[in-house]
Amino acid sequence: MVNVGILGATGMVGQRFIQLLDNHPDFEITALAASSRSAGKRYEDATTWYLDNEMPESVKDIIVKETDADAMDNDVDIVFSSLPTEFAAKVEKDFARDYVVASNASAHRMKKNIPLVIPEVNPEYLDMIDAQQKENNWDGFIVTNPNCSTIALTLSLKPIVDNFNVDAIRVSTMQAVSGAGYNGVPSMAIVDNLVPYIGNEEEKMESETLHLLGNYDGEKVSDADFKLSASCHRVPVIDGHTEAVFVELDDDFDINDVKDKMANFKALPQKLNLFSAPKNPVIVKEEIDRPQPRMDRNAGNGMSVSVGRLRKDKVFDNSFKYVLVGHNTIRGAAGASVLNAELINDKIL
Amino acid sequence: MVNVGILGATGMVGQRFIQLLDNHPDFEITALAASSRSAGKRYEDATTWYLDNEMPESVKDIIVKETDADAMDNDVDIVFSSLPTEFAAKVEKDFARDYVVASNASAHRMKKNIPLVIPEVNPEYLDMIDAQQKENNWDGFIVTNPNCSTIALTLSLKPIVDNFNVDAIRVSTMQAVSGAGYNGVPSMAIVDNLVPYIGNEEEKMESETLHLLGNYDGEKVSDADFKLSASCHRVPVIDGHTEAVFVELDDDFDINDVKDKMANFKALPQKLNLFSAPKNPVIVKEEIDRPQPRMDRNAGNGMSVSVGRLRKDKVFDNSFKYVLVGHNTIRGAAGASVLNAELINDKIL
Amino acid sequence: MVNVGILGATGMVGQRFIQLLDNHPDFEITALAASSRSAGKRYEDATTWYLDNEMPESVKDIIVKETDADAMDNDVDIVFSSLPTEFAAKVEKDFARDYVVASNASAHRMKKNIPLVIPEVNPEYLDMIDAQQKENNWDGFIVTNPNCSTIALTLSLKPIVDNFNVDAIRVSTMQAVSGAGYNGVPSMAIVDNLVPYIGNEEEKMESETLHLLGNYDGEKVSDADFKLSASCHRVPVIDGHTEAVFVELDDDFDINDVKDKMANFKALPQKLNLFSAPKNPVIVKEEIDRPQPRMDRNAGNGMSVSVGRLRKDKVFDNSFKYVLVGHNTIRGAAGASVLNAELINDKIL
Amino acid sequence: MVNVGILGATGMVGQRFIQLLDNHPDFEITALAASSRSAGKRYEDATTWYLDNEMPESVKDIIVKETDADAMDNDVDIVFSSLPTEFAAKVEKDFARDYVVASNASAHRMKKNIPLVIPEVNPEYLDMIDAQQKENNWDGFIVTNPNCSTIALTLSLKPIVDNFNVDAIRVSTMQAVSGAGYNGVPSMAIVDNLVPYIGNEEEKMESETLHLLGNYDGEKVSDADFKLSASCHRVPVIDGHTEAVFVELDDDFDINDVKDKMANFKALPQKLNLFSAPKNPVIVKEEIDRPQPRMDRNAGNGMSVSVGRLRKDKVFDNSFKYVLVGHNTIRGAAGASVLNAELINDKIL
Repeated sequence: MVNVGILGATGMVGQRFIQLLDNHPDFEITALAASSRSAGKRYEDATTWYLDNEMPESVKDIIVKETDADAMDNDVDIVFSSLPTEFAAKVEKDFARDYVVASNASAHRMKKNIPLVIPEVNPEYLDMIDAQQKENNWDGFIVTNPNCSTIALTLSLKPIVDNFNVDAIRVSTMQAVSGAGYNGVPSMAIVDNLVPYIGNEEEKMESETLHLLGNYDGEKVSDADFKLSASCHRVPVIDGHTEAVFVELDDDFDINDVKDKMANFKALPQKLNLFSAPKNPVIVKEEIDRPQPRMDRNAGNGMSVSVGRLRKDKVFDNSFKYVLVGHNTIRGAAGASVLNAELINDKIL
Repeated sequence: MVNVGILGATGMVGQRFIQLLDNHPDFEITALAASSRSAGKRYEDATTWYLDNEMPESVKDIIVKETDADAMDNDVDIVFSSLPTEFAAKVEKDFARDYVVASNASAHRMKKNIPLVIPEVNPEYLDMIDAQQKENNWDGFIVTNPNCSTIALTLSLKPIVDNFNVDAIRVSTMQAVSGAGYNGVPSMAIVDNLVPYIGNEEEKMESETLHLLGNYDGEKVSDADFKLSASCHRVPVIDGHTEAVFVELDDDFDINDVKDKMANFKALPQKLNLFSAPKNPVIVKEEIDRPQPRMDRNAGNGMSVSVGRLRKDKVFDNSFKYVLVGHNTIRGAAGASVLNAELINDKIL
Repeated sequence: MVNVGILGATGMVGQRFIQLLDNHPDFEITALAASSRSAGKRYEDATTWYLDNEMPESVKDIIVKETDADAMDNDVDIVFSSLPTEFAAKVEKDFARDYVVASNASAHRMKKNIPLVIPEVNPEYLDMIDAQQKENNWDGFIVTNPNCSTIALTLSLKPIVDNFNVDAIRVSTMQAVSGAGYNGVPSMAIVDNLVPYIGNEEEKMESETLHLLGNYDGEKVSDADFKLSASCHRVPVIDGHTEAVFVELDDDFDINDVKDKMANFKALPQKLNLFSAPKNPVIVKEEIDRPQPRMDRNAGNGMSVSVGRLRKDKVFDNSFKYVLVGHNTIRGAAGASVLNAELINDKIL
Repeated sequence: MVNVGILGATGMVGQRFIQLLDNHPDFEITALAASSRSAGKRYEDATTWYLDNEMPESVKDIIVKETDADAMDNDVDIVFSSLPTEFAAKVEKDFARDYVVASNASAHRMKKNIPLVIPEVNPEYLDMIDAQQKENNWDGFIVTNPNCSTIALTLSLKPIVDNFNVDAIRVSTMQAVSGAGYNGVPSMAIVDNLVPYIGNEEEKMESETLHLLGNYDGEKVSDADFKLSASCHRVPVIDGHTEAVFVELDDDFDINDVKDKMANFKALPQKLNLFSAPKNPVIVKEEIDRPQPRMDRNAGNGMSVSVGRLRKDKVFDNSFKYVLVGHNTIRGAAGASVLNAELINDKIL
């Protein structure tokens, strides 16, 4: 068993880490870190548990640590980070001196030699790790996963990009409130309402997606060469981001071919049979009114992206439209980091 | 005063008609028609009132009639119709023999010589009426207004189309549940959820918008020559459709110029000072997170469309993005028919 | 394995039956019946699946039957019924000629010799079955479970009634929309709203609770001798009924004693280790703001009732107040029937 | 015109004050105070406007002041306070040296010689003001209004208490999220959920109601002599508190008599024809499923309480049950203070 720690363990994504790592075959939670307000307390006493299943017994008695690399247990190998961006920018590098840092924070995404990875999409970016360690003289390293709305979109695009010449993408999102953290969206802002703005979200989607679907030549990443524009909106849904996608290809195509490529998409995590890898990264729904977030967010234990309404665009040439749903705090956050760690554990550690 | 009747008077749009016509300076409700289940009863007894203001006293004692042209009072001049499509297809023509039919139903939209009109956009299509009357040998006529999501979009596009060369539009909607009628969307379908499909809605938006922004040469309508593709979704909002719009122009432009043209847009209803005409058909919001349906749907007494997040698209050349909110049962339904009737009353009757 | 059939298999409670019986150690679904519209189709083709986990593979290919006792397979032993009341009144007796009918319908509740049972509360009412069979000359019989809001309340009251002298109870409910069936509550009625009325619900709670907590002398049931008054309301929650309970005892008491009796309550299903029996029928929450429906409805796989805010009433003598949450379509419907069947299978079949 | 100021002018209740005082016939807003973060800015620049109608033009250019009695304009006569409790405890007394303070804060409620008043219920408590001024040597004074859930309940109880001998009341509330302030309830806490706890709310209801319905003998208040116990819960509704009330009288009664007394209840504000006084303080709804918060909160411009489901309790002797809805930020907060000020302006100033 690999011992793992969680930074930001009392927060919403921290709790998802605990949920996903409970009964994990390869990882055992041995350290939990949070703010100084929580440090020194039993995890159960420090935490208001937000999830709708029970807090696992195994973590209740763990004494919460300060978020400080020097305070981390030596026998921990991997730390999962769900720290706020600014704090992550400060402390994740300290942890990387000695530990593998699998981070959901945006602080170090797309920095030179720091892999931003979705295991089904660009596992080869992990090759950056050597350079990262040398450059910084670290024994550990940092690996990051993308923004929640980016992951779901990119997973669904991978089989398209692999099989067709994509020219242009527009995406309009309807995102769940959990993506903003427990206190992120006041109920006054969202009951009988929606908020058509999420800070920095469009920028992240537009840049991270091209980076993930680009090419790493052993030194640097060249972005994918299509264009992607996003409009991001918050809706009254607890979990599960929905995205309406408009795709323009260079050439004509058969919509059933697109459907087949999505439905049959398998990649390295499926081949390696990684514990958290869903059987189908992309599930194609045939019902006219699916996917829907409450019904489809838990597909593949929250690790699959459900795609539906895949239809030829009758207006624009060489174009099609679809709708996707992905679980934003599982596949889009904690589950993404865990799958990265499973891949690293299989291939590198 | 012009005497008016309402067909479908007990339904949701019917109730909006009553609300908007209460205390109207030119129109007086003298007849209410509904299904045979309601016919013969006092309106108050026949109706479960859905709106959050009180049923006007003036209609409570009106005895509901059958929806039958022969039963309509002779002294009525205009009948407003919010009949279901199939029933409207049958009976609106009967009413048109003797009455002006201002219809919110889709049954006769875009049929030859039947004007589909937004008074701020294409009032000249009313010129079709002569041909319509001659062709059918009617004393009355039918005028229709577009689908709710189309009206809001088209109003916001009019000042753009008038001032720039539009090439392509994609729109992704987040529509209120009232658009489906009182029993249209079960709560099981929408609490902590959204439904990414609305029957025929995309087709209506894609065709009606081009028709409205086209050109009527005295004989037929030529569609506007840009392309428009829609993806339509239902969200947990009572009233107020929100739409994310991606616009591509032929040429470069100044985003402030777009903003000015929208903010300063005035048209015939404003010049004629029609009673239901909003001072500003399009209101431009500067706040980063507006428009929002609960906050902005009632702007201009529900007759203005609020536009925000107007921003240059950094990814696509000659492109910009914005978000709009329009009240779907006021500007998008009953208010649209009433404004059509006011224009007709001013120009034709 | 006991072969079981489900009546009303395509509806919401029918789907919960399928979910709960999938992988059941003692029961195997071999027959599914629904309306004539569905009969003859594969279950997967006949059904719009409403639950947020996948339809079990095992039922997809079962051909749906008409709801007709003569059409039922002979090798079925138990039929679970989630039929609408009026239809249940007609057909459940036909099935009872040959089959054990475990019914969630209200049609035959509290009828002479038809046991209304919660296994933790009044398993001895099953003794009525002999008389029922003799009276009707049936080989099978009918057993019923109470209304959803009644079950949760009665489970929480059982340890109180067993240990204290209850004098009077008032209960005010906040009930989930799923209790009304998929199309029962329009979204227009419940978004930014609540509905303070549920047809017949107060009457059912007031009568069934006293019946369940009463005494069966081998011939008839004497109601419990306290008084209970209910006020029932629908709120925008998908699953999970919440109830605020005001209890008056005859004598003074220690609130911790009440808490202990609830927390330590175990009954026959726990002793028999029935498959669907929760470890704790009543879970006492200590957090100041729990139980909450989204967080607590799934406790004990949806079969436990969570109780919180257990506090002495400072105003009324010998009184206390608490709040409970129970899953209305699991413990309050399908799970209730399944647990009844498990008890019957263990004790009678 | 009386010049008035608003303390806490940028908050939710502060905005309601502005909305209600816009176009007021007797009061003119001339001063707005808020936190130091807002002080010195134009009101429009300092404020995120939360209400669904527009910010009145008349306040946009007012420069926000510090909340400091020394900084208040001398020509102001009345200051309305919606300050947070702790801050109100500190500064309202400073303002009372020179100004009439009509406070919605709980800081000074039920203190000796500080009237807690609902104009329809206990206007005679204003007689305390003399003693208050003498005791403190103030030129101004403080008058307070009750908690939002208390006001709605007490208004509905007044005609009952005046005409029947009330023995005991239990009330279970379903309260809107606006009652907790804009950021008070996270959306994660309330979508598909409810929270069965509101800090100090039950205590306020239980004490304030008896105080308001008590008797002031010129020196002190004797509480009403019935008993009242409350259970308070937060539900996903924007505005409008709903309360289920169980009433026990000493004697038998005719339910239609109760209904008549409520429906015909008029009091001093109606007699004086105060501007904000609703024609009917209590509106009795006959529909089986009313009152509902979204439909009924705006009755009487948000100043009436709607009552429905008035029914005899078939279980408890001499008892009845009903449901009420009142607008929590109008009648329950800003409107309550404004009506108090109108009464003071009419009778005292």
